[in-house]
Amino acid sequence: MSYPKKVKIKEVGPRDGLQNEPIWIQTEDKIAWINQLSRTGLSYIEITSFVHPKWIPALRDAIDVAKGIDRAKGVTYAALVPNQKGLENALEGGIDEACVFMSASETHNRKNINKSTTETLHILKQVNDDAKKANLSTRAYLSTVFGCPYEKDVPIEQVIRLSEALFEFGISELSLGDTIGAANPAQVETVLEALLARFTANQIALHFHDTRGTALANMVTALQMGITVFDGSTGGLGGCPYAPGSSGNAATEDIVYMLEQMDIKTNVNLDKLLSAAKWIEEKMGKQLPSRNLQVFKSSS
Amino acid sequence: MSYPKKVKIKEVGPRDGLQNEPIWIQTEDKIAWINQLSRTGLSYIEITSFVHPKWIPALRDAIDVAKGIDRAKGVTYAALVPNQKGLENALEGGIDEACVFMSASETHNRKNINKSTTETLHILKQVNDDAKKANLSTRAYLSTVFGCPYEKDVPIEQVIRLSEALFEFGISELSLGDTIGAANPAQVETVLEALLARFTANQIALHFHDTRGTALANMVTALQMGITVFDGSTGGLGGCPYAPGSSGNAATEDIVYMLEQMDIKTNVNLDKLLSAAKWIEEKMGKQLPSRNLQVFKSSS
Repeated sequence: MSYPKKVKIKEVGPRDGLQNEPIWIQTEDKIAWINQLSRTGLSYIEITSFVHPKWIPALRDAIDVAKGIDRAKGVTYAALVPNQKGLENALEGGIDEACVFMSASETHNRKNINKSTTETLHILKQVNDDAKKANLSTRAYLSTVFGCPYEKDVPIEQVIRLSEALFEFGISELSLGDTIGAANPAQVETVLEALLARFTANQIALHFHDTRGTALANMVTALQMGITVFDGSTGGLGGCPYAPGSSGNAATEDIVYMLEQMDIKTNVNLDKLLSAAKWIEEKMGKQLPSRNLQVFKSSS
Repeated sequence: MSYPKKVKIKEVGPRDGLQNEPIWIQTEDKIAWINQLSRTGLSYIEITSFVHPKWIPALRDAIDVAKGIDRAKGVTYAALVPNQKGLENALEGGIDEACVFMSASETHNRKNINKSTTETLHILKQVNDDAKKANLSTRAYLSTVFGCPYEKDVPIEQVIRLSEALFEFGISELSLGDTIGAANPAQVETVLEALLARFTANQIALHFHDTRGTALANMVTALQMGITVFDGSTGGLGGCPYAPGSSGNAATEDIVYMLEQMDIKTNVNLDKLLSAAKWIEEKMGKQLPSRNLQVFKSSS
C-alpha cells in the first residue's frame, strides 16, 4: 500500500475537546495547555470558539484565551467562528484562521445551529468574505458526513452540494467530520472517491471520532487515498453528546503514534504531546479515552 | 480497496481475556458467560487454558469449565494446551481443538515458558502429534510477532523459521500475535507479505491488541491482504501485564461493528455480543476498554 511521506495534524482539543464538557477549565489552565501544545511540534491549534457563551459556556473565555496565549513561531492559531459578531471577536483576539461550520444533515444543522443548511451557507459566505477582507484564511467543518444521529444516513449528493458551495466561497480547506463516530473504512473510501473526483486531496481534511474504535482504521483508508491532513484532540478529549461516557475525537497521540510508527512524519514530539495530554487529564479529573495516554501513565 | 466477503472471528476472551486478571470469576459465571457467547453466532470460542494452575490461577477451574458448558451446534470449543499433561486434561474436558503457543522472541519465550524456542518447538510437536492421534485439530499462537517487551524488534526471519516449523508439524492455523499492542498497518503489511509468500491466507489468523488504538487499523491492512480469521476478546478483556491500566485484546464487538458496517459478514449478532460483554464487565467490576460497549451501555 502507498502512504504519504508526511501528514499535518490539526489539534482541535482546546475547542472541540472542551466545548461539550460540563467541567470548567480555568482560563489560565487553558492558556497553559495551549502553550504546552505549541511546544510539541504541532503547527496548527484551534484554540477556542467565538460562539455566543449562552451556547457554549465552557468556552465563554474565548477572547481571554486568544489574548493570553504565547504565539509560537510556525504555529497557526485558529478558532471557530459562527457569524460576523464572532469574527469581530476573533479578529480582536488576533486569530490566524477562521473556522466555519455546518452539518451535512439538514436535521442536525437545524438542531445545532437552528437554521436550514441554505440559510447557514448564506451566513458562512458573509463570514468568509469578511475574513478574507481581514486577510484571514478560512477552514470549513462539514459535520455528520458519515452519519447523523437524527437522519442516520446522509446522502453523498448533499455532502457534494455543500462542499461545492463552501469551496465556491473560497475556503482553503474542508474538514469532513464523522461527528457520531460511526464511519467505517469502506464508507470513507466511497465518500472520498466522490469528493476526490471534484476536489484535490490537499483541499480535504478528515475529522474522525473514535466512539466505536474505528478512527485509526478510517484514517488508514484516507491515507491510502492521499489525504494528508487530520484533526485530532489531545487525550481523545471531547465526548459525543449522543453517547455519554463514550469516547469522542480521535486522540492526537494515538494518531501521532500510528503515523510515526508507519514512518509517516508528523513533526510532533510524542513524549511532549503525552505530557500535555496527562496534564489536561488531571485538570479534567477523569480518565480520558486516549489509548497511548494510558500506556504512558502506566510507564512513566 | 478489495475486502473479503466474510470473516471468521475466534473469541479468546474466556482464556486470553481472563488469564492475567487478578479478579477471580466464579466457575459458574465463566460457564454462563461462555454459554451466552455460544448464542451470539460466534463459531469458535477458546474457553480456558490447561496450563498448570500455579502459572495461571485465574483459570485453575479449566476442567470444570470445559465439562460445565453447553455445547452449541456449530461452535468449536478450543482450549490452550501447553504440554502433554495439559492435553490429557483437555481431552478429558471434551475439547474440540488444542491451541499451542510460543513466542517469536527468544527472550519473551524464555520469560513466559522458561524454555528456549527450540525446546518449546520440541514439546509443541509432541502435543500436536498426540492431539492428532486423538482426532483433535491444532492451532498455534505465535506471540510477540510485531514487537517484544524485552527485545523490541523481532526479526522477520525468526517469525518465518518458527512458522515453517509449526506448519511442518501439521497445525491447521497459525495466529500471529501483537502481544504488546505495538503493531502498525505498514508493519502488518511487511510481515504478511513475507508469510503469504510461503503460506496461504487461510492458514493465517491475526491476533491484535488495542493497547495503542491500532487494532482495527491493523485489521484493515490484513483484510486488504486477504486474511479472513481474526481473534477478539469480548469487552476488550485482557490487560497487557507490561502496561497496567491499558487495554489489551481487540474487543470482539469493535471488530464485529466495523466488519458488519463494511458489509463483511461475521454471522455474529452484535446486540447479543454486547449484552454478553456488559454481563462480564459487571462481573469484573471495572470498566472494560471496548469502545462499542461504552456506547451500548449509554444507549441501553
